[in-house]
Amino acid sequence: MIKVMHYTDAPAENVEQGASGVKIRWIITEAMGAKNFVMRHFEIAPGGYTPRHQHAWEHEVFVLAGQGVVATAEGDRPFKQGDVVFVPAQELHQFRNPGQESLSFLCLIPSPSKCNL
Amino acid sequence: MIKVMHYTDAPAENVEQGASGVKIRWIITEAMGAKNFVMRHFEIAPGGYTPRHQHAWEHEVFVLAGQGVVATAEGDRPFKQGDVVFVPAQELHQFRNPGQESLSFLCLIPSPSKCNL
Repeated sequence: MIKVMHYTDAPAENVEQGASGVKIRWIITEAMGAKNFVMRHFEIAPGGYTPRHQHAWEHEVFVLAGQGVVATAEGDRPFKQGDVVFVPAQELHQFRNPGQESLSFLCLIPSPSKCNL
Repeated sequence: MIKVMHYTDAPAENVEQGASGVKIRWIITEAMGAKNFVMRHFEIAPGGYTPRHQHAWEHEVFVLAGQGVVATAEGDRPFKQGDVVFVPAQELHQFRNPGQESLSFLCLIPSPSKCNL
């Protein structure tokens, strides 16, 4: 059955392990029937950052509000609302919010059972 | 390599075949290295609609601006900015914009080579 909901209907959880000031919402999940890929929402407070890491699955990111930088193997790349970031599998990356306002973006990944998450 | 771009960097194409007033942008594509799933952006003008159809792959939708309805096998479901729509595989669906302003949303699908698109 088709589902319609607001993204804030999914609970916000703190991201630990190498992150600061980051909340994640799992919006469209494998439990909901998403067998191939899943949609998450991230909010990063001013000064916050996600872990600097790399892994075997890609990220597809759409920036909803605010601005930030993504640390890459080639250096920092700035981004802002309306930008899209594609992080291929195995690429080192970290999302940071050096700004004064909250940074909000979608980040989709293959469904966790495909990532061995 | 990590890619950062604005979603409007992807060209807008008219959607034909059962649609009216619909433009699509392919933002993150298989050609870019997205092997598992791809990101598209849709803009539907007031009065416009996508084809009423069903297919073997799912949609994961995030509504960026405006409001609309999704026609489902159980009837019309309204949605608005910040809402998320999950259309499982094989579900009949159609997105319509009965409003006065443009409707803008992301719609992700498995990579086309996985959909036999």
